[in-house]
Amino acid sequence: MSESRTELSQLGEFGLINRLAEGISTQNHSTVMGIGDDAAVINTGDQYGLLAADMLVEGVHFDLSYVPLQHLGYKAISVNVSDIAAMNGKPEQVTVSLGLSNRFSVEAIEALYEGMKAAAKAFQVDIVGGDTTTSKSGLIISISVFGKVEKEKVAYRKGAKVGDILCATGDLGGAFMGLQVMEREKQAFMANPNLQPQLENYEYIVQRQLKPIARMDIIHELAEFGVVPTSMIDISDGLASECLHLSTHSGVGIQIYEDKIPIDRQTYETAVEFNLDPITCALNGGEDYELLFTIKQEDYEKLEKHEDIHFIGHTQELTKGNRLVTKNNNLVELKAQGWNHLSGQKEDN
Amino acid sequence: MSESRTELSQLGEFGLINRLAEGISTQNHSTVMGIGDDAAVINTGDQYGLLAADMLVEGVHFDLSYVPLQHLGYKAISVNVSDIAAMNGKPEQVTVSLGLSNRFSVEAIEALYEGMKAAAKAFQVDIVGGDTTTSKSGLIISISVFGKVEKEKVAYRKGAKVGDILCATGDLGGAFMGLQVMEREKQAFMANPNLQPQLENYEYIVQRQLKPIARMDIIHELAEFGVVPTSMIDISDGLASECLHLSTHSGVGIQIYEDKIPIDRQTYETAVEFNLDPITCALNGGEDYELLFTIKQEDYEKLEKHEDIHFIGHTQELTKGNRLVTKNNNLVELKAQGWNHLSGQKEDN
Repeated sequence: MSESRTELSQLGEFGLINRLAEGISTQNHSTVMGIGDDAAVINTGDQYGLLAADMLVEGVHFDLSYVPLQHLGYKAISVNVSDIAAMNGKPEQVTVSLGLSNRFSVEAIEALYEGMKAAAKAFQVDIVGGDTTTSKSGLIISISVFGKVEKEKVAYRKGAKVGDILCATGDLGGAFMGLQVMEREKQAFMANPNLQPQLENYEYIVQRQLKPIARMDIIHELAEFGVVPTSMIDISDGLASECLHLSTHSGVGIQIYEDKIPIDRQTYETAVEFNLDPITCALNGGEDYELLFTIKQEDYEKLEKHEDIHFIGHTQELTKGNRLVTKNNNLVELKAQGWNHLSGQKEDN
Repeated sequence: MSESRTELSQLGEFGLINRLAEGISTQNHSTVMGIGDDAAVINTGDQYGLLAADMLVEGVHFDLSYVPLQHLGYKAISVNVSDIAAMNGKPEQVTVSLGLSNRFSVEAIEALYEGMKAAAKAFQVDIVGGDTTTSKSGLIISISVFGKVEKEKVAYRKGAKVGDILCATGDLGGAFMGLQVMEREKQAFMANPNLQPQLENYEYIVQRQLKPIARMDIIHELAEFGVVPTSMIDISDGLASECLHLSTHSGVGIQIYEDKIPIDRQTYETAVEFNLDPITCALNGGEDYELLFTIKQEDYEKLEKHEDIHFIGHTQELTKGNRLVTKNNNLVELKAQGWNHLSGQKEDN
């Protein structure tokens, strides 16, 4: 064993993943893409298979004092489906592994499962297996998802070319603001347990946090419109972080425009109420599970009228860097303040 | 929410899985087999894909006071590979999701990964993704595995017919006795920290516990000999429990013979030293990760001379039940004392 000790917090989540991924090579011909995208790509013959996995840990990813188990079950499936969507694929099977402490009743686990089954139905995936075991502390949900994509339609992070148009779906920053509202209500409740949570003006953003809906609708519509994104990623860590991922993998710079970034009115107003900059929330607030993708300029007309696809920027030579053009026409370097799940702190990456 | 509260311990692991599996139906044509076998079976075109997942939790499945991280990494991959072997398939990709507490250094996680990489190389699987996150208490390892099998060669739990021959590979009970030895040495060390662990006479069984090797060699040999098992399962919970699974799924009774059950000499002698019945250890001790399968009588000759395949019994009409024939020619009903991972207690099932 090595004598040196490096703390996990010194590396951060992305640093650790990069360090562990070093020296991992693939040996099977069927492995088309290993570590480094939203899902692994597996050659299954006529099509590609897609494989991804996500783990959700109580106290790290969710707080059961305000997250209903049914919503949590739905979200656990949805975030995995989102990884398959981000490859332009369709999810078909999931495995569900649960670590459970004795604190949970059978009825509680059934509520969790009800949410999973609702999501499975909504996204047309089958729950086909998994594992159930004891946990020493709280709830652990580990899901893997298998999906399919036609070989010529797979969308990697790495495919963007200079001059492509950058698209974002839905609206951004809402899930982050929903979390802020629920945290505030929790603090208020803890200070005075007679208080009822005040959530009626925040329904949309709370829903964005509790029950994100993977954008499979967009994947189906892209197929209908005959558009294959040149690159794609799901927006789980914030728009800025995902832009930088596309940039790194594709070897292009990305320029986005502040006035094009889609922000819902409730997100905007709540951010202002919390003395936060709405744009910063959209850039760095995670868990929206929208899609960020690039298309060729010639495909613009096909999507132009889509109400829920927003053209927020374009790719450029890598030497021009990754930049935000503000409303005042200033150029600001894009930096990701991704959530560091290992330390629970925001980190630059 | 329901007002009643049912404790998890009232149902046990198998009971909970059965309860959650109720009401789960499959909706995709590609799902050939969902919950209920060692792996799910997915139609990917010319072949079947196989998908399985397992979660290992510190303090439940392993004790880091005597389990080296490198061995643990190897074992985590091996037990997942074993699920694919049990379908007569070949594993090709795995995802690795880790929950880590701050107690672990980067070097410790690298040691864990070294073991995983060694197993990946040994079993020719690629580590293609996963997730890394914080855990509030200890180490959580959640792995999913994807494999392939030719459609006409898939082996389910359900395929045994009356009159088939029952085969077990390797030897049984060793992993369980290895665990007993390590637990004893841990107790001795805790009573007197100056004591060195005495493991030199127990190397084989300690290895069986720490670093089980999935029997992919057997899968390759069965293919060479042109034998497709009529049913198969891996021996993770003990021989008796697995016999009952094959019985339930196939709708046949199983008769095994005490004098045919393969037990290594070190396992036998250690069991006697611990005042345990070696046969009981083989029947109910888990984690050997050998294979249990049935073959047609006409295939017997093809495997007859294989040194590591043991013909321990046969199937019979379900009405004859599941029985052990003792050395004295007594008939004893087979009962599974499977390990209950939820309560940490042995349970009948």
